[in-house]
Order: sequence, then structure tokens, then C-alpha cells
Amino acid sequence: MDSSTESVRMAKPRPKDMSHHFSDVTLARLPSKMKEYYKYFLIPGIGQLAGGLPNPQFFPYDTLEAQTAKPERWTPTPNRPGADDSLTSQLASTSLLPDKKNKSSSPDPRAAPEHVVVPHDGEGSDPLKKVDLTTALQYGLAAGYPALLSFVRQFARENLHPNVPYEGGPEVVMTVGSTDGMAKSLELFTNIWVKGKNPVSERQGLLSEVFMYANVLSQALPRGLNVVPVEMDGEGMLAEGPGGLEDVLANWDESKGKRPHLIYTVTMGHNPTSGVLSLQRRKEIYAICSKFDVIIIEDDPYWYLQYPSAELNEAKARGLPIPEPKDANSLENKSGYPFLDSLVPSFLNVDTDGRVVRLDTFSKTVAPGCRLGWITTTPEIAEKILRIAETGTQQPSGFVQALIAQTIMGPQQVEGSATMNIFSALRSSSEKAAFRGWKVDGWVRWLAGLRGEYERRMNRMCTILEENAYQLKQSTPVRKADADWGVITKTQLYEFDWPRGGMFLWMRMHFEQHPLWQVPGSKGLPLNGTALTTALMILLTHKPYLVLVSPGLMFSTTPQIAEERGWAYYRLCFAAESDENIEKCSQRLVQGIHRFFRIKKVEELEDLLDEANAVSEQGLDAQFGLANMGAYMGC
Amino acid sequence: MDSSTESVRMAKPRPKDMSHHFSDVTLARLPSKMKEYYKYFLIPGIGQLAGGLPNPQFFPYDTLEAQTAKPERWTPTPNRPGADDSLTSQLASTSLLPDKKNKSSSPDPRAAPEHVVVPHDGEGSDPLKKVDLTTALQYGLAAGYPALLSFVRQFARENLHPNVPYEGGPEVVMTVGSTDGMAKSLELFTNIWVKGKNPVSERQGLLSEVFMYANVLSQALPRGLNVVPVEMDGEGMLAEGPGGLEDVLANWDESKGKRPHLIYTVTMGHNPTSGVLSLQRRKEIYAICSKFDVIIIEDDPYWYLQYPSAELNEAKARGLPIPEPKDANSLENKSGYPFLDSLVPSFLNVDTDGRVVRLDTFSKTVAPGCRLGWITTTPEIAEKILRIAETGTQQPSGFVQALIAQTIMGPQQVEGSATMNIFSALRSSSEKAAFRGWKVDGWVRWLAGLRGEYERRMNRMCTILEENAYQLKQSTPVRKADADWGVITKTQLYEFDWPRGGMFLWMRMHFEQHPLWQVPGSKGLPLNGTALTTALMILLTHKPYLVLVSPGLMFSTTPQIAEERGWAYYRLCFAAESDENIEKCSQRLVQGIHRFFRIKKVEELEDLLDEANAVSEQGLDAQFGLANMGAYMGC
Repeated sequence: MDSSTESVRMAKPRPKDMSHHFSDVTLARLPSKMKEYYKYFLIPGIGQLAGGLPNPQFFPYDTLEAQTAKPERWTPTPNRPGADDSLTSQLASTSLLPDKKNKSSSPDPRAAPEHVVVPHDGEGSDPLKKVDLTTALQYGLAAGYPALLSFVRQFARENLHPNVPYEGGPEVVMTVGSTDGMAKSLELFTNIWVKGKNPVSERQGLLSEVFMYANVLSQALPRGLNVVPVEMDGEGMLAEGPGGLEDVLANWDESKGKRPHLIYTVTMGHNPTSGVLSLQRRKEIYAICSKFDVIIIEDDPYWYLQYPSAELNEAKARGLPIPEPKDANSLENKSGYPFLDSLVPSFLNVDTDGRVVRLDTFSKTVAPGCRLGWITTTPEIAEKILRIAETGTQQPSGFVQALIAQTIMGPQQVEGSATMNIFSALRSSSEKAAFRGWKVDGWVRWLAGLRGEYERRMNRMCTILEENAYQLKQSTPVRKADADWGVITKTQLYEFDWPRGGMFLWMRMHFEQHPLWQVPGSKGLPLNGTALTTALMILLTHKPYLVLVSPGLMFSTTPQIAEERGWAYYRLCFAAESDENIEKCSQRLVQGIHRFFRIKKVEELEDLLDEANAVSEQGLDAQFGLANMGAYMGC
Repeated sequence: MDSSTESVRMAKPRPKDMSHHFSDVTLARLPSKMKEYYKYFLIPGIGQLAGGLPNPQFFPYDTLEAQTAKPERWTPTPNRPGADDSLTSQLASTSLLPDKKNKSSSPDPRAAPEHVVVPHDGEGSDPLKKVDLTTALQYGLAAGYPALLSFVRQFARENLHPNVPYEGGPEVVMTVGSTDGMAKSLELFTNIWVKGKNPVSERQGLLSEVFMYANVLSQALPRGLNVVPVEMDGEGMLAEGPGGLEDVLANWDESKGKRPHLIYTVTMGHNPTSGVLSLQRRKEIYAICSKFDVIIIEDDPYWYLQYPSAELNEAKARGLPIPEPKDANSLENKSGYPFLDSLVPSFLNVDTDGRVVRLDTFSKTVAPGCRLGWITTTPEIAEKILRIAETGTQQPSGFVQALIAQTIMGPQQVEGSATMNIFSALRSSSEKAAFRGWKVDGWVRWLAGLRGEYERRMNRMCTILEENAYQLKQSTPVRKADADWGVITKTQLYEFDWPRGGMFLWMRMHFEQHPLWQVPGSKGLPLNGTALTTALMILLTHKPYLVLVSPGLMFSTTPQIAEERGWAYYRLCFAAESDENIEKCSQRLVQGIHRFFRIKKVEELEDLLDEANAVSEQGLDAQFGLANMGAYMGC
């Protein structure tokens, strides 16, 4: 449709047919003939006695309104901090330090809110621009509210992913958030498998990293999917090497079921490990997926939260050589926005086959309560997602779709409109404010401001954790033969990477340094990693520490991983707490950890375990119980 | 928990265990251990580093606001029209007749809108009353936003269904609308069955009436469910007699699969046939379900749209004896509202076993674009619905939940609150209006007003259809032997019941009276019912008729029913069009029908069929294509 780029697109390959990956239920869905009948709905003056639509006059809302931030409310951080900034100057940016008198930091004074109004009956006739309650609160299209969908589609195609290598580019379908997007993707691509009822040879698999977003386990396991872990490093999933993607697929044991045809991955601010997958690694993983015919579901709620200062500040804090600033994105077509161009690009940008399904959400850019997101993928796959939506969620809520559409696009400008109805007459003219909409510029500026806020928080937390990673202690001998080891030592209690993206810090605890490590407990069982991580979690909830952390057990893709190494990790979120609290919480956390490593009596540790009996008594089962917390905790 | 009614409840039986009806996937879901950990979230002053929640300070909305109708905006109709009103006086209620100058009827002048504000940070501490963006736009509970859920739960338990006969009463879980509620119910109660892959003996069934809401077919058929029709009359599903529920279940042929364990039914304003199932019929059907262990999914979006005037006005219009006014609801406990007490009660009120799952929605009481509804059922079943929601839709959108909660409950009143933050300071005090919330009284009044509006429309449409049901014509002989039949006759072109509820009128066309009935077409095929219904549908879209109707083919539960009798029906919706248009559309419709019955040339009829080739060429296949329109048309 975009004639200006048509000639370029014509040279691109068509996306491949992926229907052999569709589930039985998806294949059984008949194609919609709606389009054939839609023409009748458009006959001017047609009397609508067919649909079961209530009359919009009877909606109890005459307007929907909001006090809305200006896009400039929050101050961005640099895209190339090595080139044009430093940690010191960032932290010294006083207007952004927490205001000690208030609990929140001060918004930019330029950024007093503006008043957005969604009228009952909008002016203008372009459905891609018109935002009103008569249309937004009526039954609508599963793909999304036209005005919002047109913005999201353009933003996805032209700004976020301008390099998609297949003909025509990707399509966009709205979801009710990415958990819904993932549920729909699983329904689209996987069959249910029941042990004892279906042959093992029919069991399908889902690949993910060894640590993964727990809620996806809660989605996949009840369907009988074989969730198969792939090794990872600081960036994310490994392509090569033992346990890497190629290794897992090439050496697949058919006795476990079908070779997995699906990957679930968070690639930008990995949840829980915080890595950002480089473009180079993406190319390697994609080539393997192409070779083994694997669909990639890329779930990136944190895509705009990439922190170029992390590598720099980590090096500075550790006295390591300062790395050269580098470009994360070396692709050809640019978005037109330096902020977007500085981010590592999606798998979509290397998707020559059309095997990438990307999940996006407004949960972290606007608010989780939106329950609004979108899927970007090939037209063939998008059409199947639509079919699923039509028989389930239908469209996302019109309240949030209308409000976000109006916030971004602004009221449609109509010259000399004479339409007036009872509802517009009731509104005072002053409410028709000068608000013009954020537009794409404002949306990108808002995201850059949020990145700034979260990047500063990340740096604050990391600075405190960095300064407190070691404990000076007199090591306690655990064997008589070691009695003369009782000397002052500098013990590292934990290690971590400064997060390259997202909302989390992934902390590796050195429980093996704990005085009670593997000491027999009163029930004869040694105090192992699971026991120690549980005890520390409980201690941290006590005064004066009072912090909640998420255990690595919860993110372990299999019980084996939880047992072998999941116990060593905590995921810390630097997003939820207020700006002031993030430093206080980090301080209390390290104090609690230091206190924990000074516990020398088995009884004290076992008291903590008794308190946590729901976790400790049930051992590894607790992992999957904890996984259910995911939805509540919005992991 | 309600100590006042505890003694009464103790005497009731517990709901029976229904877990043998749960699907494989549902049984594979592990119980949530969230509650065990929830206590930690509630520790005062706890630092939240565990969850992946964004900070609510970064939500771009400082308030959510709306101009909201007063509950008195629309004028109700009588609950016992025979006793205290008549059609004449209803139609003469001049303030409710369409205003010819405006396109909409005039709202009650007392009912100017009020301004509802959802603040960023609410005052007060009771989460069941507090409505603010900090909580509503954050990740939340799948059961629903506490303030809204508490209202809905109380309304469902105390006002809508005060007679639920099992211990403790029903639970309530929010959905993202009833299509979602049905999708979740199907996931909960049914396994996917694939022809050629699974044995027929494992195939499960879904019972419904011979005509049913088409979108449910689109949900059930791709899962491989055997959708089994049950005969119906003007009320709805038949309990006894040939093809009735008892007959279908008692004489089930196991070679078709398992005996169905599930009913889907719309019982109040049936879609498409408009019937309201009496309490007596409910008891009969329930006893059969209890005997054959069948779960009842009761989907009632139109429950408050019950029209006591329909029977009366139908009798008057036809010169039949005027029926005595009667009580639809003879149950013991009353709601406290004469309007609610006058309505036929839900299956929940006879659900001694705990086998009823009731779907409700805000789509018809507020607006379809809410995508908000709820399920009322036993705690055991509700808990499973929650598990499904947590891994799919999560909670409904916070924007709509907060706004409806605030509209109904009003701002929490807090004396002398000293809390002030940057957002409340930015708001002008004038915006803290005197709005107090509709409360339950206002909600019931709003529903009664809507019933009034739709009941008047229904009566207007029926009056016009009633006056034009007959055609005076010179009947055309189709056989030479009948040549001397060429006399003036009064031919009934259609028949219908005045709708007892809902938004639809179910019109039985007498196509067998058409001059071209069963006449051979140019391709040798006779012009049968499917051809005639298709041709008339197309003619109606032409000027000057310009009306769209829904064909009965679309609502036929099986292709056989479509072929045998579905062609004879149209569903007419009197809800969507404006008040003024409903009469104009009805007039144009009957003009189109009269014109159609005057078509004598095969060519003219076949021209219409050619125009509709997508429908006519594909014959019965079109039924299921049309079914896909359901979601769009919001049937």
C-alpha cells in the first residue's frame, strides 16, 4: 500500500508458508467470510437490523477524559553515554534526584498535565483518525480500534522495525496484553498433549532459556508441552556450544517427543536475567531456527529500556577498562529517531522466512492495567491470531483504546464543522482544550524519558550493591582440620551484571561461602542451596530489612535447573519502588544479606525455614507454586 | 462470611464436586500457592523488589474522568403493565417519543451528566472502596478490581440471585466479556477432539437449542465438539417431548461420541429467538441435567430486558383474550427492588447441585466496548476460571474497571484527610465534584430505564410488523391445473412472537407462499428456501428498502437445521438503530418484503442471487461463514 516503498518491497521474498506449524484447532477454524459481507455494512443509510449492537445513545458515558502527562515529563538519559555523558553527571542531574520532602521525584515543571477528551460523537469522517465513544465503546474489530491500530501499525512498521526483510512487511493485531498474546500464540502453534492418553511421539516442545518468565511455564505445562531449556549467557540464549540452541536441536532425542518447533524468548532486558541479545547473536539464532524450522516468539515488554550506561558504569565501578561506545543497531533503514536507532533491533529485522511472532505491550509504557498490547508478525499468522481473538477476547477494551488513541493522535481537526448534538452541547467549550496529541514524536520522547528514569534507578541500585558485595569476616572453620583457617578474609557474597536492559537485576548469591553451607540440619538433611535461599528470603522480610525478592527457583525452566543452580539467584526489580525507596531498599537488602552470612547457628537458620514451611517443606514443588505468583506480581 | 445469613446457609447442601467434568488442561493446572505468599506483600513498609511492577508514578494519566449519565436519564416501563399501564399510554409518553429535530430522543432533563473523577491516588484505606489509578492501572487480581468485584459480587449474591440453594452461595470472577467467559468455560469443561486422531468415543458434546448464538459455534466447532441441537418453543429449550432435552439425553447414541455433559443456553431474551425461559421450565430442565449430570452454561446478556408488555400487546393487536398479569418470579427471597423481583430468575436459583455457570456482561448495560463481564458459579468452578484467566487475559482493563467502579460506588468519603501529592495538587478543587456514585439503587434504576427504552422500541417495531403481515394479492397459479385459483387472497407473509425479552425479533417468513417457491431456476435447481431467503436479504439492501437483517441460516445449530428450516427465519434487532430510525427501518423492511413477494420472474430473483453469489453459490457452507460475522456484529 505504501507506494513510496513498494519498489523496495517488491524485491523482497514473500514470507514462507508456516501453516504446517498450526495447531489442530487453528487448522479447524474456517476462514472468515466477514469481508464478503462487510460491504453491506457500508451502504450509506443502511438500516442496521442485523447486528446485535446496543444503541450508543444508551452508553452512560457522554465523554471519557483524563489529565495526561506531557511527553516531556521525564528527562532522558544519553543514547551514547560514553560519548556524551557519564555516571557522575547523570547522578548529579539534580532535578532528577529524589525530592526528600515528597515521596516522588519532581516532574519536569514544563510538563504539567493536559486535558484529553474523548467526545461521545467525534467530528470528521476518517475512521483511522476519529476517536469517539460511539465507535470505541461499540462492538469493534478484533484487530483493534482503527485509530489506535493505525498508529501502532505505522509505528511498528516504519519506526520500530523498518528493516523487516519480507515482502509487504508485517501485520499488527492488538491483544489484551502480552500474557494474552502468548496464550493466543500457544493456541495457534501447539496441540494439547496428555500423558497416558496421547503417544509421546505427538508431544510438542517449547524452547526457552534455562531461566525464563515463570508465567509462561504456567501457560505451557498444563498443555502438556515439553519445555526445553537452552543455555544462556549475559546476553541471553546461546546459539552455539554445549546446551546451546544448535546443540539442543541437532541432538534432539525423539523419545522425549517431537523436536521443539517453538521458542519463547525475552530478548531485550531478559526476564529474569536482564540481558539484551545482540544483533549478531540474533542472526546466529535465526539461522539455526531457519535450519530446524522453528518459530520464534519474541516477547519484549522492556524493549525501550536498554541501558547503554550499564556496561560503562560497571567497568568504572570495577576498575576495568572503559569499553568503547558502540552501535547496537547497524541495520540499514533508520527510524528517524536517534533514541529508537540506538536500540538493539527485534528478530523481525532478520526474519527472512516469516517465522517471528513479536509480542508488545502497553503495560510498561503506559500501565499494566491497560491490558493492551499487540502482535507483529506475517499477515498469514496475524490472520490466525485474529480468528482466535474473535472467539475469545474479541477486541481490547474500548475505554483504554480510545484514551490512548486520543492521547497519541489528538482530536481530528475539522474546519467549520456544524455538527452539534445534545452531548456536545452539554460540554463546556473550555473542555475542548488545545490538546493536540503526542504524535509519534511525543510517544518516542515519552519512552526516552521513561528509559531515563529507569536507567537512573538501575544505576542507583547497582552502585549500592557494588559497594557492598564483599564481607570482611573471620571465616568459621567447619572441620577441625581447618581450625587454623580462622583468619580475616574478604568474601564476595554475591555477583551480578549491571542490567543492560529491562526492570531486573539478576543476583548470583555465593551461598557456598556461607558458614552453614551443607552443614547437616537437625533433620539430618544438609543445609543446601534451596534451604539457604529460602532462609535468606524470609530473613529479608523481617525488620529492619523489610524487602521482598524473587527467588531464582521461580524462574528455573525445569525442576532440575532449580535444583542444580536456581537456588543461587535472586531477581531484584528496580522498577516498582519509588525513586527514594529504591536506594533505601537496596541498602536494607545488602544489610540483610550481610546479616545472613553472619548466621552461625543451625537453629537460627532452621527457625527461618520453619517460618517458610510452605516453601521449604515442599522443596522443589514450591518452584511451580511460586510460578503462579507470576501473574499477580506482574513479572 | 455474612454472619446474619449464616444460620440459613448452614442448612443448605454443599455444591457437588464437578471436577470429573474438568478438561485435561484444567486438571493439569496446579493449584495456586499465591495465597501462601500473599501475606508477605502485606507486611507494612515492605520494599517491593520482587514483582515486576512498573512504578505507578510513571503512568501517563494523572486522572481518569468522564461525563456520566444520571441513573434517571431514561424512563422505565411498568413491571406489571396489565395491572398499571397500557401500550397506548406507553407510546403516548411524549417525552420519550423521538424528537424529530434531533436524531436522538431527548434525555430526561433531570439527567444532565455528572462528572466522575478517578484520582491518581485515592484517599481512604479500604481496598474494597478505594478507586484510584495507582491500583487500577497496576497489575491486579484476575478475579477483578477489588472495588468493582465487591460491588458485582454483592449485587449477584444479594440482589440478582438471592435464592441460590447451595451452602455459602456463589462466587464471582470478572471476565473480559461473555465471549471470553464462554471461551474460558469451554477450556474448563471440554477437551479438544480431532477427527482421525482421537477415537470417537472421546468426543465430547455441547447441547444447545436448534437455533443458537452463532459465535458459540465458532468457538465450539474448531475444538471438535459435537454440537447437539435440542428442540425449542417460544420460551426456549424444551425439556420433554420429541427432540427435547430428556429425549436427546436418554436416547443418546454412543457411536456419535460421549453423551453431552454441557449445555449452552441464552435464557432471557434468547438469541436469536427472543424467548424468556419460565421458572417452571427451568426446574424441569434442571432436573434432567441433574439426572444426566450435565453442566449448564447460562449466558444472559439481556437478562434485565424482559418485556412484560409483549404478551399483552400481542394479544391486543391480534384481538385475542387479554392475559392476566402474572409473576415471573415466585421465589422466596426477594432482591429489595420491584424491578428485579419482576424478572424471571436465573438457573442459579434452582442450582442445588452447583452445576450452573452463569455468564453476565456489561456489554448491554454499559457498552460492548467495555469488554467486561463476570461469571457467577460455585467456588470450585470459579477457582478454575481464575487459573485460566491468570495465564491468559489476566484482569480486565483497569480503565474500564476503575471508571465503572467509581461511577457506581462513588468516591470513598474520608474525613479530614491530609494526604496531598503532586497529582492531587495539580487538580483543581472544583473537579472534586459532588458526585456520590450511583450505588445499587442507581444501577437498578439505570437498568430499568434501559428496559423502558428497549421495550418501547420493541413495541414500535412489532406494531408496524403486525400491521403489515398480510398481503392482498392475486395468487399466481404455478400449475396449469390450478389456473382457476387466480383469485384475490389475503396471504400471511410472515409471523412472529412479540419478543418477551432481549434485543431481537424472530421472524418466520412464509416463503412457501412466494409465487416462485420451488420453481425450477435457470440452472435446473428449484428456488428453495435458502435461495429465497438469500434473494430477499439482498433485495432489502437495495434502495429504497436499505435494511440489513440476519438470516436464520446463521443461527442454525447444524447444517441440517439450516437446510430444513433455518432459511425460513430472520433475526431483527431493534436495539442498534436510533429511536427515530427504528420505525423507518421497520417500514422499509415490510415494504421490501411486500415487494419481494410480488416478484414473479425467475430472472429477477436470480439476479438477486447472482449479486449474493458468495452466499447463494456456497449454499449451506455460507452458514458457517456467516457465523464468523457474529463477533463483528456483536450478536
